[in-house]
Amino acid sequence: MFRNDYSEGAHPSILAKINSTNTLQSKGYGEDQYCESAKKLILDHIGVHTASVHFFVGGTQTNLTALSAFLRPHHGIVSPDTGHINLHETGAIEATGHAIIPVPNKNGKIYADQVRSILKNHMPVHMTKPKLIYISNSTEYGTIYSKKELYELRDVAKENDLFLYLDGARLGVALTCENNDLEITDICDCVDAFYFGGTKNGALFGEALVILNTSLQNDFKYFIKQRGALLAKGRLLGLQFQALFENNLFYDLASHANQAAKKLSSGIKDLGFNLLTETETNQIFVIVSNKQHEALLNKPEFDFEFWEPHPDGAVIRFVTSWATPDENISKLLFALNEIRD
Amino acid sequence: MFRNDYSEGAHPSILAKINSTNTLQSKGYGEDQYCESAKKLILDHIGVHTASVHFFVGGTQTNLTALSAFLRPHHGIVSPDTGHINLHETGAIEATGHAIIPVPNKNGKIYADQVRSILKNHMPVHMTKPKLIYISNSTEYGTIYSKKELYELRDVAKENDLFLYLDGARLGVALTCENNDLEITDICDCVDAFYFGGTKNGALFGEALVILNTSLQNDFKYFIKQRGALLAKGRLLGLQFQALFENNLFYDLASHANQAAKKLSSGIKDLGFNLLTETETNQIFVIVSNKQHEALLNKPEFDFEFWEPHPDGAVIRFVTSWATPDENISKLLFALNEIRD
Amino acid sequence: MFRNDYSEGAHPSILAKINSTNTLQSKGYGEDQYCESAKKLILDHIGVHTASVHFFVGGTQTNLTALSAFLRPHHGIVSPDTGHINLHETGAIEATGHAIIPVPNKNGKIYADQVRSILKNHMPVHMTKPKLIYISNSTEYGTIYSKKELYELRDVAKENDLFLYLDGARLGVALTCENNDLEITDICDCVDAFYFGGTKNGALFGEALVILNTSLQNDFKYFIKQRGALLAKGRLLGLQFQALFENNLFYDLASHANQAAKKLSSGIKDLGFNLLTETETNQIFVIVSNKQHEALLNKPEFDFEFWEPHPDGAVIRFVTSWATPDENISKLLFALNEIRD
Amino acid sequence: MFRNDYSEGAHPSILAKINSTNTLQSKGYGEDQYCESAKKLILDHIGVHTASVHFFVGGTQTNLTALSAFLRPHHGIVSPDTGHINLHETGAIEATGHAIIPVPNKNGKIYADQVRSILKNHMPVHMTKPKLIYISNSTEYGTIYSKKELYELRDVAKENDLFLYLDGARLGVALTCENNDLEITDICDCVDAFYFGGTKNGALFGEALVILNTSLQNDFKYFIKQRGALLAKGRLLGLQFQALFENNLFYDLASHANQAAKKLSSGIKDLGFNLLTETETNQIFVIVSNKQHEALLNKPEFDFEFWEPHPDGAVIRFVTSWATPDENISKLLFALNEIRD
Repeated sequence: MFRNDYSEGAHPSILAKINSTNTLQSKGYGEDQYCESAKKLILDHIGVHTASVHFFVGGTQTNLTALSAFLRPHHGIVSPDTGHINLHETGAIEATGHAIIPVPNKNGKIYADQVRSILKNHMPVHMTKPKLIYISNSTEYGTIYSKKELYELRDVAKENDLFLYLDGARLGVALTCENNDLEITDICDCVDAFYFGGTKNGALFGEALVILNTSLQNDFKYFIKQRGALLAKGRLLGLQFQALFENNLFYDLASHANQAAKKLSSGIKDLGFNLLTETETNQIFVIVSNKQHEALLNKPEFDFEFWEPHPDGAVIRFVTSWATPDENISKLLFALNEIRD
Repeated sequence: MFRNDYSEGAHPSILAKINSTNTLQSKGYGEDQYCESAKKLILDHIGVHTASVHFFVGGTQTNLTALSAFLRPHHGIVSPDTGHINLHETGAIEATGHAIIPVPNKNGKIYADQVRSILKNHMPVHMTKPKLIYISNSTEYGTIYSKKELYELRDVAKENDLFLYLDGARLGVALTCENNDLEITDICDCVDAFYFGGTKNGALFGEALVILNTSLQNDFKYFIKQRGALLAKGRLLGLQFQALFENNLFYDLASHANQAAKKLSSGIKDLGFNLLTETETNQIFVIVSNKQHEALLNKPEFDFEFWEPHPDGAVIRFVTSWATPDENISKLLFALNEIRD
Repeated sequence: MFRNDYSEGAHPSILAKINSTNTLQSKGYGEDQYCESAKKLILDHIGVHTASVHFFVGGTQTNLTALSAFLRPHHGIVSPDTGHINLHETGAIEATGHAIIPVPNKNGKIYADQVRSILKNHMPVHMTKPKLIYISNSTEYGTIYSKKELYELRDVAKENDLFLYLDGARLGVALTCENNDLEITDICDCVDAFYFGGTKNGALFGEALVILNTSLQNDFKYFIKQRGALLAKGRLLGLQFQALFENNLFYDLASHANQAAKKLSSGIKDLGFNLLTETETNQIFVIVSNKQHEALLNKPEFDFEFWEPHPDGAVIRFVTSWATPDENISKLLFALNEIRD
Repeated sequence: MFRNDYSEGAHPSILAKINSTNTLQSKGYGEDQYCESAKKLILDHIGVHTASVHFFVGGTQTNLTALSAFLRPHHGIVSPDTGHINLHETGAIEATGHAIIPVPNKNGKIYADQVRSILKNHMPVHMTKPKLIYISNSTEYGTIYSKKELYELRDVAKENDLFLYLDGARLGVALTCENNDLEITDICDCVDAFYFGGTKNGALFGEALVILNTSLQNDFKYFIKQRGALLAKGRLLGLQFQALFENNLFYDLASHANQAAKKLSSGIKDLGFNLLTETETNQIFVIVSNKQHEALLNKPEFDFEFWEPHPDGAVIRFVTSWATPDENISKLLFALNEIRD
């Protein structure tokens, strides 16, 4: 419990679709009616019918395929130092030939001024040329970009002919959390491409990449195949995004995760624990003493992640999901109460 | 019908496992009990407990991850010119930096003497160094390697310090077809790595890579992550291979496809059509006149693939699968009878 | 003697420039006055002032830098199977991520129809996308493209939105040989980029890449640096191409090599030896018996290259150069006379 | 004057060798007697006859060829953030597929404890695996590693199965400067590979890579060819390193540069300017006001590099070389005196 938001399978309505279509034949490689239908639902939802939509099985796959397709060999990617592509994808981007230009994060985020500073210090020919800004929303620290922050990043990108890419592995919780002031249309106004993350929001697996910049759409399916990311039974991805977008399921599931996180976060603070950052979405970073840390490790039913060392002991992370029941929150709070010093 | 062997979903017993475990939590990235159990089943089946097993979502992903992990930058891959990696993976191997050295195929196969000839003509330093032999079994032409042929390839590999890799996207039908004289233990004796193909043999998706050469096992999971191939809910792969290997399902499904192919192939010959090659597994290559070809295209219920031009018109391909019902075979033969000139 | 056309150092007038400027200071990385001047000379010579010129130390470096800069990741290169990039550059192109699509050569050349056939058989998404045609002039077999052949390749390229690239490692001898009907202006009309080879035509080292297609010029210097090809004392390259193009030296040196080859080739035929192909430029391919081959190997002063096996014994190659003296030709003919059976 | 240490050509004795051998024929690709002789001189000098020596034209080329040859795809390189490969080689390393793990530098250097900290925070599978430590000596800030510091880096490398690689673009000045306590034998004890930089120490061009770790030597020449770094007239590299190592020329030239730097640095301090770091080798970093900076820019005869902004104005860099005459030092000091406020 609470280790992450991809510990369970899929939301029942998603699984139902997979079951009900199992014996039907369809064309391979995403050329089927379910993918077509899911793409239409997504385009209708975002209201940009010139965009193209492509389905992937996972996030690292999406990032490496898209970014390497968008860039020429000398182009580098400006990313928060804590960005998933910089820290936790085993050099997947570099393996496609591109350097990442890390920028010190502030709670997982970077700002337009930092990008401007990178550009100012660029030495032509001898340095990798900054061409794309990578951000995540919500970030790896569970924080979110405000409308103002995102439009400022858009401005610096446009003024300098950079692309802006948004990793939406946890986009659902970002757009449905209390502090959010971004609409999906703002994202479409600002970025060249982004993805709706399904794996961490109730799908068995799957991410839906949306390419808004039409100059980046050409031949894109070749890249999917080349990176080993073209699912033979592509239908499985179409079905899942149909389920997520034919009603409001994508956002309903994310809301549930946020509400669970809020309840848990409040409870943890009430118990006297300090948080590393205020909880905005479904990731809760709690500062514990070494003794508390150890005590929790002895309760294997509460799986969680050690995040980083802290002067007071350690930061640990709890994650809620679309599937988190109230009961589990109560159990965890009860357990945390027990291990207070 | 008959377009390929991945048109349907999964065998019911596979789907049942996915359904029954849907709400249970498990560790991500293949660190779960189902993957452990499936690996054990596979190791028991092949009888080589020093091997390591890794699950992938698809074949191109498996090939590019494994081959790029096994090779140093100057190493090239000897492959039939018709090999899947050479023709139909959009340069996925080259995108990881390696050259393919194509060898003229004979019905989809290559022979030890051809490899020797490549080695004899190798000019050190100035040519990519041949280091790995890639073969498929069954091949892209539905043919199979005999025990003699495989051991001869093994010999040339061993004598020259090359690796031998077997793409088993359709390994099930190869090992269960009438002409086959290979045991799985022969394959384990001969190759450094191979995979059991699930996608084309009754799984929703999934391939199980077996690395027999222990010198190639080190750090392998890093490569899976780096290529975007590490499934978050890795459990889904473990479950499917549990189902395929905890009883004889993997081979039973393949046998069904072969029997269907045999019935269809006999029927087609009885109707007076000529085949491009004798049908050994589940792919049937039929020579048709242009008029016949067109007539068939007007029967959309019989989906098939145009394979290549032929002096008499065209070669078209029918594929049977674990799910092909007798009824479909009868329907197709009836239709073929109608279009005879 | 006769092993190749890069056995000696540089033409004296080139060396003189290097000596006379040795103690002068200049800016690094090709930002110096000599490079500027050499570029201007080349642009004046070709008569296309929108072209850009870049200097490299060697041919493989030029090819890999240019081709990887011009292409997107899914693009493949159509090349004669005997093309230098396909056979003798150790997978340098593939190491940048691109597949080569080999086409059976005819005396080292490929033809427009063969390219059309490749395009016709292209299967979108699943195959590497042909985007650039690579040819050499003169070819690896010493043959040359006629005006008609080159314009036909240009046509197929233009009609199909492909680039045409000409490897000019031996462009000098191609343009000055007896059978040639190409002007440098024809080349500029036909290709998107090509290079003037200096290493094999009297320079200490150096190739001058000319990019005619302005859409391929942007940021090109970044690629040179990234591939390790930006010479710190870039001045050395500028100086050499100044010398080659400020008078007619580039062509004069090539003419000398061709005349030497003609003399040698006639002499060889007069002695009764057969040639593999008619001698068009400075490479002479002679068919010898095994006994003759061995006899020649015992005369180490006549260095040559074994080219390939032949039903009558072997094909061996003699190469003349800008520096070949008449005396050496006489000596070789004398020796060949001795070893006749 | 003073912009860098590669503004001039070659030391006269080097140029003499190139001139005197110009018309002699020799084998291509470094298979000549001069390369053999130069390799022997270097092995004798370092006293490790199991090492292998390879010549390159430039530093970026050396770094990218060696590092990509030494590493498997998931391996990352620990480097000072100011390391040449991280900042000023246009992503050349990443273009070969490897991530760089930057470590905050202290005056251009990194320390064993920092490497330990990287290793401690490594998360297997999900992060690029640290495998090689890259350092420069002298560093990009002109500083040098002490014997103690280098052996400590060696220890952390050995204990953790990492390689240690030393970029010796400016190794000559490092080993001959006043504060140095390292012998060449210490370097050979500590590192797996390093190079003697010729380009910045009196050669026309050229670096001599020494691979001490025998497990990294295998097939190395293939990599040189593949990266476009195999010079056709390889003889030119052999000749230059013969000249540098057949007497003490390599160190004599470096000593000259250091002495010139010392004289200049003292003079600058005497004039009241502050330095960014104490001058250890041939790079002098001077803090100037904006007004002084501008005044100097108006004296184009004193070419220098703007290094970085500084609270007091700017840091500018002067570099001395093997060729710097006393006269130039006096002129620069005179000019600096004039622009004092």
